[in-house]
Amino acid sequence: MSDPILDELARMLEARKQAEPDGSYVAGLYAKGLDAILKKIGEEATETVMAAKDGVPDKIVYEVADLWFHTLVLLAHQGLGPDHVLAELARRMGTSGLVEKARRGN
Amino acid sequence: MSDPILDELARMLEARKQAEPDGSYVAGLYAKGLDAILKKIGEEATETVMAAKDGVPDKIVYEVADLWFHTLVLLAHQGLGPDHVLAELARRMGTSGLVEKARRGN
Amino acid sequence: MSDPILDELARMLEARKQAEPDGSYVAGLYAKGLDAILKKIGEEATETVMAAKDGVPDKIVYEVADLWFHTLVLLAHQGLGPDHVLAELARRMGTSGLVEKARRGN
Amino acid sequence: MSDPILDELARMLEARKQAEPDGSYVAGLYAKGLDAILKKIGEEATETVMAAKDGVPDKIVYEVADLWFHTLVLLAHQGLGPDHVLAELARRMGTSGLVEKARRGN
Repeated sequence: MSDPILDELARMLEARKQAEPDGSYVAGLYAKGLDAILKKIGEEATETVMAAKDGVPDKIVYEVADLWFHTLVLLAHQGLGPDHVLAELARRMGTSGLVEKARRGN
Repeated sequence: MSDPILDELARMLEARKQAEPDGSYVAGLYAKGLDAILKKIGEEATETVMAAKDGVPDKIVYEVADLWFHTLVLLAHQGLGPDHVLAELARRMGTSGLVEKARRGN
Repeated sequence: MSDPILDELARMLEARKQAEPDGSYVAGLYAKGLDAILKKIGEEATETVMAAKDGVPDKIVYEVADLWFHTLVLLAHQGLGPDHVLAELARRMGTSGLVEKARRGN
Repeated sequence: MSDPILDELARMLEARKQAEPDGSYVAGLYAKGLDAILKKIGEEATETVMAAKDGVPDKIVYEVADLWFHTLVLLAHQGLGPDHVLAELARRMGTSGLVEKARRGN
């Protein structure tokens, strides 16, 4: 239930809680508070949509990374982490597997 | 550069490309096309913002999982996958580590 | 400070507060509550962005109308109306006019 | 089909097309191009959602005004204007009136 890159990111985001607000982008976001983090999530979702409409693969990856990054900032800010999200995704796959099975009637 | 849950999800999303549109939610989204997928990303980003304003941890995790899920559908639809996003996040952490180091002057 | 179409829309949205939830789209939205209205605003903003990327004028107008409509539903739900928004826009134009003047130094 | 404030705003936004990009906020947005305008629409929609969750009437009005303003910038950038949106809203009210009538069976 754990990914090395997401784990390292989560540790870095945790460590930034002790950093000076003007010494790090993330510490600056924490200092501005929840609304600033959520505004970024809305912004990066819009940029993901625009990148996808442009159809440029590198841009799509870049914007999805931006979007995931800012959701990780939100999770850290709320005392949560990527493992909670991965566990929820795993739970659904389990369910969905069962649902598909039931549908196939076997 | 690889997470077992995200990998399994990516394989499942790939497999759904062969499924009947009305037999699976994801196959239905693929059949509706890019705009339907992007609309879901905008919707789930908004629901993440609302869950965070409500401050209910379970709801935040649930909505972030929804948001990640639909970005994974977008990536699969574009022939991309979670590894591309994780590599981009790793690249940034590298850079950011260097930037932080440079800032500290050592 | 008042537009006949926006006024009529505001009156219609007010009247829907007495309607049966399953007899009218707007009454249904009111019954579902604030989050359902906000979700629509996020959705219509995303659709506006997609329409603009497609560059089809009719679609842009249609989606902006959808977006304005759902902000009017939000305003009505909160006991507010289009006149409040028009007054705020007028206030800014006044300010902006003064700012521009000051910048030009006359 | 025309509102004095929205008309004046539309004229102002048209005039800004001749302004220096660094002399006016709107001229700066035009110079940055469509994506910059759309990013603002995504941002202001998110801020509208946050203001509504906070339930502060003045903030809601302020953010909806911001959202309408940036959709007007988009319309102007595309050679469109508020009258197109008001006409579309009027068209729907006509339809909706008829639909409601039909539903009531008279």
